[in-house]
Amino acid sequence: MASWPTSADVESAASQIAGVAHRTPVATSRLVDDRAGAHLFFKCENLQRSGAFKFRGAYNALSRLSPSEAKRGVVTFSSGNHAQAIALAGQVLDIPRVIVMPSDAPSVKRVATEGYGGEVVLYDRDREDREEIGRRLARERGLTLIPPYDHPHIIAGQGTAARELFEDVGPLDFLFMPCGGGGLLSGSAIAARAMSPGCKVIGVEPAAGDDANRSFRSKQLQTVHNPTTVADGARTPSLGTLTFPLVLEYVSDMAAVDDSTLLRTMFYLWERLKLVVEPTGALGAAAALEGAQPILGKRVGVILSGGNVDLTQVSQWLAM
Amino acid sequence: MASWPTSADVESAASQIAGVAHRTPVATSRLVDDRAGAHLFFKCENLQRSGAFKFRGAYNALSRLSPSEAKRGVVTFSSGNHAQAIALAGQVLDIPRVIVMPSDAPSVKRVATEGYGGEVVLYDRDREDREEIGRRLARERGLTLIPPYDHPHIIAGQGTAARELFEDVGPLDFLFMPCGGGGLLSGSAIAARAMSPGCKVIGVEPAAGDDANRSFRSKQLQTVHNPTTVADGARTPSLGTLTFPLVLEYVSDMAAVDDSTLLRTMFYLWERLKLVVEPTGALGAAAALEGAQPILGKRVGVILSGGNVDLTQVSQWLAM
Repeated sequence: MASWPTSADVESAASQIAGVAHRTPVATSRLVDDRAGAHLFFKCENLQRSGAFKFRGAYNALSRLSPSEAKRGVVTFSSGNHAQAIALAGQVLDIPRVIVMPSDAPSVKRVATEGYGGEVVLYDRDREDREEIGRRLARERGLTLIPPYDHPHIIAGQGTAARELFEDVGPLDFLFMPCGGGGLLSGSAIAARAMSPGCKVIGVEPAAGDDANRSFRSKQLQTVHNPTTVADGARTPSLGTLTFPLVLEYVSDMAAVDDSTLLRTMFYLWERLKLVVEPTGALGAAAALEGAQPILGKRVGVILSGGNVDLTQVSQWLAM
Repeated sequence: MASWPTSADVESAASQIAGVAHRTPVATSRLVDDRAGAHLFFKCENLQRSGAFKFRGAYNALSRLSPSEAKRGVVTFSSGNHAQAIALAGQVLDIPRVIVMPSDAPSVKRVATEGYGGEVVLYDRDREDREEIGRRLARERGLTLIPPYDHPHIIAGQGTAARELFEDVGPLDFLFMPCGGGGLLSGSAIAARAMSPGCKVIGVEPAAGDDANRSFRSKQLQTVHNPTTVADGARTPSLGTLTFPLVLEYVSDMAAVDDSTLLRTMFYLWERLKLVVEPTGALGAAAALEGAQPILGKRVGVILSGGNVDLTQVSQWLAM
């Protein structure tokens, strides 16, 4: 885990996942373009296998294990899309996988992870440390730990979404996407530097969890503790030891959007693009459409990072 | 309006709309296939321009007007997707268009129609007859009346969606789709007969508005008056004078689904395909997935006919 991922690693990841991950479509809309006064290209990672870009990194990492590592299996900690992605990638590759998940995780997420054949180990969010449990399981059972973002194969794998977007639509002036732990953001920024050097890459956080915005500006790693936001995929406590320097090196700027703006944008995407995008997945679009950068007349990429929604929450979101 | 549309007319319509209407994608899902025990191909007309298949027929009809007819303009009656489709097709072709709409139509639909530059004329649903108003406006202002389904160019245009599906995925064993006035159904069945002769074409209505089911079985035109159903696109009073005989000639069977089954299927499509489909647009999928025909092991096409949803209704739908 010592090497820094490069654009060659993203290219290699693209070959590795070809034919297994979906090459997701790019959505466009005249009405959205008219409203924004720009040309927007939405990379539909909500249509990726397991419902989010996370499958790219998970499959890239798991498919590179040695035969003996693959036989023993992997462990990860995540209550969200990375958990489902590891569960599915392990199913495809026939690799045992243990997912450490908080005992209060929504049952829909637990069921989805188990549906892909992952073994779920629950922990008490208030009293236990998920990383510690992951490391202990790795040690005791000989499992390889695959963290959700701070891993070169994960980062390189996530960068393939942006790579495909540039291949399909050519150079862009801006590329917006969510930032949680920074795996998608740093991977995408590495791909952009190689394929569209003038493209400004913008990471977007929920306002309540703006640690990466603060880290980016202060150049010191900042943290946040369990922020309250509908963007559950971006509640990560901080950037990682790999992703933080990559973000500083490759990312042009950061932005943050509040929850009501985020939900308004999310529902706008549902109505206009007819695409179900989860709140976290709409962060990039919210920043792009709400004036975080001067996009007028520009060619703008947006990664719709995921679409795993518990629809019973919609009533509550509509009321916010 | 005397001639019966044929597969040659559908082919001609396909040329007519090429490059203007979207060639919509076909969605598939391993999880949906596993659940159904069949191979399902979803034709995404929710991603069509104006949010529904209706643009196909509207553009086909309007683009065939003579220069003098085009200059005078058209009139239609619809509170739904046909209204928006005529408004948009007229905008693209620079043809004046008047849409007769009930005064109690949801404001979101009126706003959408006006957004495409259509002139909206309101009428009182209880006291006035929309067809009479349409005919009067046609007479007084020299407008050409373009009805929502009972017109050969409309029928041929709607058939292009099924035609594209067969071109993209090859022959099918079944093809399911909604039936309101029967334009989409008869156009699709004409296309199927030519391109996949063994394919059983199934029209699906909401149970509360099953007039076409009854007409199909009795071979006598049956009607229904303002049925109460969430499938607002299929509340049509009856098949038309053109579509009824075409349905009898070309369609294999009809089915009906109740509203709670329909909504459950609609939300399942949102969750699994990440596609926003409106209730009417989920009729075909509901019949296919809920056992209306023996699809086990078969290749099954489903037309997701539209995605125009007023999201503020979702809370109410979730509670049904």
